[in-house]
Amino acid sequence: MALKQSSTWVALEQHRQALAGRHLRDLFACDSSRFQQFSLELDGLLLDYSKNLITAETLQLLLELAQQADLEGWRERMFSGELVNGTEQRAALHAALRSSDQTRLLVAGEDVRSSVRDTLTQIGALADSIRNGSYRGYAGAPISDVIHIGIGGSDLGPRLAVEALSNRHDGPRIHFVSNIDGAELAACFSQFQVATTLVIVVSKSFTTLETRANAEAVKQWFLDAGADAAAIQRHFVGVSSNREQALAFGIAPERLFPIWDWVGGRYSLWSAVGLPVAIGCGMQACHELLAGAEAMDEHFLQAPLAKNLPILLGLLGVWYVNFMGLRSHAVIPYSERLRQLPAYLQQLEMESNGKSVDRYGTPVDYATVPVLWGQTGTVGQHAFFQALHQGTQPVPADFIGVAEPLPGYEELHEQLMANFFAQTEALMHGQTAAETREQMEAQGLPADRIEALLPFRIFPGNRPSTTILLRELSPRLLGMLIALYEHKVFTQSVIWRLNAFDQWGVELGKRLADGLLPSLRGGSELAAHDASTQGLVEKYRSWRAGTPPRQHD
Amino acid sequence: MALKQSSTWVALEQHRQALAGRHLRDLFACDSSRFQQFSLELDGLLLDYSKNLITAETLQLLLELAQQADLEGWRERMFSGELVNGTEQRAALHAALRSSDQTRLLVAGEDVRSSVRDTLTQIGALADSIRNGSYRGYAGAPISDVIHIGIGGSDLGPRLAVEALSNRHDGPRIHFVSNIDGAELAACFSQFQVATTLVIVVSKSFTTLETRANAEAVKQWFLDAGADAAAIQRHFVGVSSNREQALAFGIAPERLFPIWDWVGGRYSLWSAVGLPVAIGCGMQACHELLAGAEAMDEHFLQAPLAKNLPILLGLLGVWYVNFMGLRSHAVIPYSERLRQLPAYLQQLEMESNGKSVDRYGTPVDYATVPVLWGQTGTVGQHAFFQALHQGTQPVPADFIGVAEPLPGYEELHEQLMANFFAQTEALMHGQTAAETREQMEAQGLPADRIEALLPFRIFPGNRPSTTILLRELSPRLLGMLIALYEHKVFTQSVIWRLNAFDQWGVELGKRLADGLLPSLRGGSELAAHDASTQGLVEKYRSWRAGTPPRQHD
Repeated sequence: MALKQSSTWVALEQHRQALAGRHLRDLFACDSSRFQQFSLELDGLLLDYSKNLITAETLQLLLELAQQADLEGWRERMFSGELVNGTEQRAALHAALRSSDQTRLLVAGEDVRSSVRDTLTQIGALADSIRNGSYRGYAGAPISDVIHIGIGGSDLGPRLAVEALSNRHDGPRIHFVSNIDGAELAACFSQFQVATTLVIVVSKSFTTLETRANAEAVKQWFLDAGADAAAIQRHFVGVSSNREQALAFGIAPERLFPIWDWVGGRYSLWSAVGLPVAIGCGMQACHELLAGAEAMDEHFLQAPLAKNLPILLGLLGVWYVNFMGLRSHAVIPYSERLRQLPAYLQQLEMESNGKSVDRYGTPVDYATVPVLWGQTGTVGQHAFFQALHQGTQPVPADFIGVAEPLPGYEELHEQLMANFFAQTEALMHGQTAAETREQMEAQGLPADRIEALLPFRIFPGNRPSTTILLRELSPRLLGMLIALYEHKVFTQSVIWRLNAFDQWGVELGKRLADGLLPSLRGGSELAAHDASTQGLVEKYRSWRAGTPPRQHD
Repeated sequence: MALKQSSTWVALEQHRQALAGRHLRDLFACDSSRFQQFSLELDGLLLDYSKNLITAETLQLLLELAQQADLEGWRERMFSGELVNGTEQRAALHAALRSSDQTRLLVAGEDVRSSVRDTLTQIGALADSIRNGSYRGYAGAPISDVIHIGIGGSDLGPRLAVEALSNRHDGPRIHFVSNIDGAELAACFSQFQVATTLVIVVSKSFTTLETRANAEAVKQWFLDAGADAAAIQRHFVGVSSNREQALAFGIAPERLFPIWDWVGGRYSLWSAVGLPVAIGCGMQACHELLAGAEAMDEHFLQAPLAKNLPILLGLLGVWYVNFMGLRSHAVIPYSERLRQLPAYLQQLEMESNGKSVDRYGTPVDYATVPVLWGQTGTVGQHAFFQALHQGTQPVPADFIGVAEPLPGYEELHEQLMANFFAQTEALMHGQTAAETREQMEAQGLPADRIEALLPFRIFPGNRPSTTILLRELSPRLLGMLIALYEHKVFTQSVIWRLNAFDQWGVELGKRLADGLLPSLRGGSELAAHDASTQGLVEKYRSWRAGTPPRQHD
């Protein structure tokens, strides 16, 4: 049946009409149990969703929608290794990467779990030897710097985790190179020595344009410094499912780790892609990260729908997108160590569910993924919060805070957290005209000034937010947090009837870029392209031709 | 007259209906002059707006809207120093910061231009002495590292500029500290020596919570290292309009630079707030940056509306927000050196126009600022471009590219630019079912596979974008680019009848945070707060109380 014609969908639309005009402030005022009712804790992670524009009935209807969509069935299919990625005929078994279950899980006749265990053992051994200095470069020196080359899912996960765990970092420094314009490479080349630098090249296909080009540039840097093929082998590690290409590039077989076709790039942090975490913080941190994700997997599998954190998060998102017509969603971590989280979740959500054709190939007639964006707090407070509080467009937001301070910064942390709690209160509660007037009177402003300023200092409130409070920013809680969002995204994909695990939408641009490259070099006709593309490339060529080779010292 | 009842607004709504169903591909096909008609160049900056969902009639109507809003009058009022920031009774004279005009411009009886010149001379002298090593720290050593402390407008501008000009950077290293959680401070303290570190404290009020707290923490770091008050004076520079507080903190009068009340924080890069650029790249780079912004000011003032870059950019945004109902806007620079640009523009746009009460104090009945977000390309291609190409929600996007490569990275740059041009082509053109089928046939896919995959590999196209191509990423062109967006934002504020220069929406959260702080420390009642805020703070307190003091080595 068409989703929008289902009785639950229609009931949700009617319910949304009935809710119009109810202010969150009033919902809190008339129900003293609202926080108890709409918050859940799982082992150091508190999810408070009471400041959302919902009532018990909203949730009841959303949960019906989930049941009607067979969320439980799809969840079971995903965890058991069925080919839930239909277009690519693949399983989506990222949860198996963090499973401590020892029973066999067969995919194409191979036991997934033993392959995973073997790989973890291998990256643990490599990371240990690098960390304790027994692993030596070609000139006999231990490793002091690691360049991790990858892009998208091969980059965002380890970048997030290494940054988030920076206060536990005690191994070699890790540097990430993803973009292709040379800026990140130039920074590396000016600071490091080849003799003490290890390079990790991560590309599922080993043909990703940016990663290949950057890996070749780094290889050339080694060659220019006098390294030979054996030295390259010693200094390069590969993570790929294309064994042949990786070996041909010059990776040694014993330092080439697999990614399996049942792991999507944006779900791959839990595989050998997470090697930088093991090198930077030790394999124990990796194990804790995996254990945290597994705890969330267990919760997602076993908790009743109405008490299931990722399912609730997913359904709240559906509520805002499909029934309240809100098309963006903010993620605001109050921790600089989580500054990569918005970019990470942006990929996770928008690449997974940024689709308009359902899993059966039918164009959908409802909205799917919102724009996911964000910035750390309090930084964002001094940037875009004006629009969150007083703009014309409500933006549902996830506020993520950490109870434990960085050691030595307890005072600053309390100021940070006061802001963290105050912002969701302000967004929810707002400030009425009467309150605003009273406050200005208390400040002693003259009456005419009060009248002039009054309309500008009123806050409508009623702006929804969800708070996630972590007891500490440990590897375990980081793993829980990321897996929470993974399953949130999966939940939404099931409601929207999408395949969350393919990404056909990235292909056309890649193909057109291949076609345009010869034209940029001036060697090819542009007539097949539209006038804008022609005009732009011609301007580019004329500027490039006119650029005298600059002298740099 | 109410904006939405104006004949032009109504005509735009009708025009939007008439345009529905027209595909950008067809608009290009039926007009071979579309690129010539809808692109403009200003001194190394090409603006191509031909891939927007517009016709000549759309622009005509939007230009009428601008005239009807008296954009030319408001522009004149802003540049001449009238109090266009009505609620705060202030001028908005950031353009005066980069004006080479020597005639007097009086604000409150003081010649703005001579104050500006004097300040530039002073920061130039300071920057020179730091760069050439004649400026010495308290222990006699030259400065090797600079910590810039600020948040919001006191941080985002210099952060953007220092990063954008990193390939010209030849002075001391610059580090930015804005957030209050200690993570950025910890990184500084672990790497630098007080004897060779200069600290710049930027806060218009000198009371900004984060900046004050971070400045105190850095001062303590100096004191702990044995520095005395004279040493503090030697190592700290202030930029503030609160002279008294800055001096009381310990800034020496000769190293305290003004910000005037006619410069908003998010427009302050052009003042002494830009000191890090002068220290990092030299005062000449600053002068070029200012000259670029001035060139854009002149263009904004003098070019006819229909050929006026910032006005066109602003009107395109209004078209998408108010007539096409699109509520987010992406900025995608194809340059890692511009990675801070989305965050910078996010503040500029969302803090300026994230309002729902017009300049007369009347609530508006139309949408104002969209969510401004973005990420560098090609990085974003591997993250959220799936949703841009195939999601249910079109997102107008500005693609910003640089023709000149980083020296030594010409090959990589060409790959980058091929992607840059290809993405807007792909978004505009899309790929029809017939083209998709043909392409899969050419790949040799079996017929049943082609049928199964077909719906997933179609691209609707018709997704609008604007391309800004810079000849090079010089200080001058960076200045032009930023001023282009400043005046775009101003243009939109005039259409929406907003005061772009106040930010009352940030006040409530700050006040509530002050009130919550004692509660976090356990010393105060929470009963005045909603149940969610109470519950969250109580959980925080219980976790903090239960946290054993961790041992760190």
